[in-house]
Amino acid sequence: MEQLVFSMQERLCQAFTQVNGTGFGADHWTRPDGSQGCTRVLQEGAVFEKIGVDATVMYGTMSPAMLQAATGHAPTTDDAPTFAMASLSLIVHPHNPMVPTTHANYRYFEFGDGRAPGSWWFGGGADLTPAYLFDADVRHFHQTHKQVCDQYDPTFYPRFKQECDEYFYLPHRGEHRGVGGIRFDTLHEQPADKLYAFVTDCAEAFLPAYLPIVEQRRDLPWTAEQKRWQQLRQGRYVEFNLIYDRGVVFGLKGGVNVEAILTSLPLIANWEYDFQPQPETAEAHMLAVLRQPIAWA
Amino acid sequence: MEQLVFSMQERLCQAFTQVNGTGFGADHWTRPDGSQGCTRVLQEGAVFEKIGVDATVMYGTMSPAMLQAATGHAPTTDDAPTFAMASLSLIVHPHNPMVPTTHANYRYFEFGDGRAPGSWWFGGGADLTPAYLFDADVRHFHQTHKQVCDQYDPTFYPRFKQECDEYFYLPHRGEHRGVGGIRFDTLHEQPADKLYAFVTDCAEAFLPAYLPIVEQRRDLPWTAEQKRWQQLRQGRYVEFNLIYDRGVVFGLKGGVNVEAILTSLPLIANWEYDFQPQPETAEAHMLAVLRQPIAWA
Repeated sequence: MEQLVFSMQERLCQAFTQVNGTGFGADHWTRPDGSQGCTRVLQEGAVFEKIGVDATVMYGTMSPAMLQAATGHAPTTDDAPTFAMASLSLIVHPHNPMVPTTHANYRYFEFGDGRAPGSWWFGGGADLTPAYLFDADVRHFHQTHKQVCDQYDPTFYPRFKQECDEYFYLPHRGEHRGVGGIRFDTLHEQPADKLYAFVTDCAEAFLPAYLPIVEQRRDLPWTAEQKRWQQLRQGRYVEFNLIYDRGVVFGLKGGVNVEAILTSLPLIANWEYDFQPQPETAEAHMLAVLRQPIAWA
Repeated sequence: MEQLVFSMQERLCQAFTQVNGTGFGADHWTRPDGSQGCTRVLQEGAVFEKIGVDATVMYGTMSPAMLQAATGHAPTTDDAPTFAMASLSLIVHPHNPMVPTTHANYRYFEFGDGRAPGSWWFGGGADLTPAYLFDADVRHFHQTHKQVCDQYDPTFYPRFKQECDEYFYLPHRGEHRGVGGIRFDTLHEQPADKLYAFVTDCAEAFLPAYLPIVEQRRDLPWTAEQKRWQQLRQGRYVEFNLIYDRGVVFGLKGGVNVEAILTSLPLIANWEYDFQPQPETAEAHMLAVLRQPIAWA
């Protein structure tokens, strides 16, 4: 998994550099215990406003608060168990409001020596957050991930699609963050080598799921009003990530590099007071779908 | 207190309308139980990017989660007690990066009939969040509030200044949100009428503490780089308010109007990755003071 997160980080950065025309910075860190990470961020170029690709491998002991943030469950013990974690995460914020924001994350957790039942698992997924809805794009993104899921278990896609919709939800807004994709956590229902192959195939599917959408929409014209709507949606993205996202809460409590954790935030976000889209506009349609998820694949 | 929050809201809006040249919208709401509120927001004009002035009076019962958010302490009972609350809050985000953002909030809480010891209190304060530091401005803001405090109790200002520094702190950044002011909570150590007079005088002191700073700095020239730094600091403001602010957490859990709660957020915020000010610049100086608060009065 360590190898996967670093090699996939390299490939993702190469692919986005090619699309964007400019490349990524890289901040490496290492600790004596073998923990290491690399945060790669792109902040200018033709197509993207900000892309963060973070690879982290951590060894350590986990406080009850971190344990709860990592698992979403109250810890059943006051012990601070040793753990190992490898995680790859990616967030892409494009310039053009017609190109969706996207996020992917794949990770492996192991407590102790990983031999106790339930002491290891995989987590992850990929999801799409458009400001403007193009049904074909969302169907393509979902379909590409469904194909991978179906190769492993016919229940995976429907379960993980639903989990994605449920997780990326802002209860205070009554809105989902985006149009979903797949998401799974504490996945250990098949042998580890099988699930490692599944996670690898999911990560491999990301570029074919997303890049065709970028190519399709990157040259569409857009207006200042449409940009403002995108930045307003980016404000919702910030709200989700700072208030609800388990990875951010885990990261801020765990004391790892703050800038690395918050690469997920957009470059610019807007909080215009009480903006309400006019009825029967593209913005109103987008909002309706964010309030009531659709079956895309 | 109900009268104070609504009359002071009116006066604040009049004063800022005069400075800005454009006025506020108003969203009123009422509930059959006597709860009511009015959110007033200004989003354009010569001087300010966004001002939110919210007056809320609420009657209700409080869940343990709300109770914890309101008091900062774990609830000692599983009961959902009845409460009454009156609160005035104000946030001012100026255009010019040389004019500081400011925030003030004054509120009264009462549980049950307010007769049990510790069942009522006042809370509030006012604080300043500059992007660029002008010592004279910060001294004036602190001194104006200190004068009010000193009329009531010589321990108030030093205690409330420290409480303000401690509360408006982002542990994940190692930075305070701004240069402080005063903050107090669960204040019930003097008779209620005395503390009501204190809170009234604090609220009265806000315009004389802030408006001279606006007049002094509003016409200073500023560059695109300075605006970017202001927006980056606004990003920190968003981080504090969404992750740590007790009022926001309370509001989002309490199900009151989300847009009203989030008027505190700036119009535009920026999360450029890992921006580090150059040594010996105004930005670096600002950051140093945010990391190590100063005695201003």
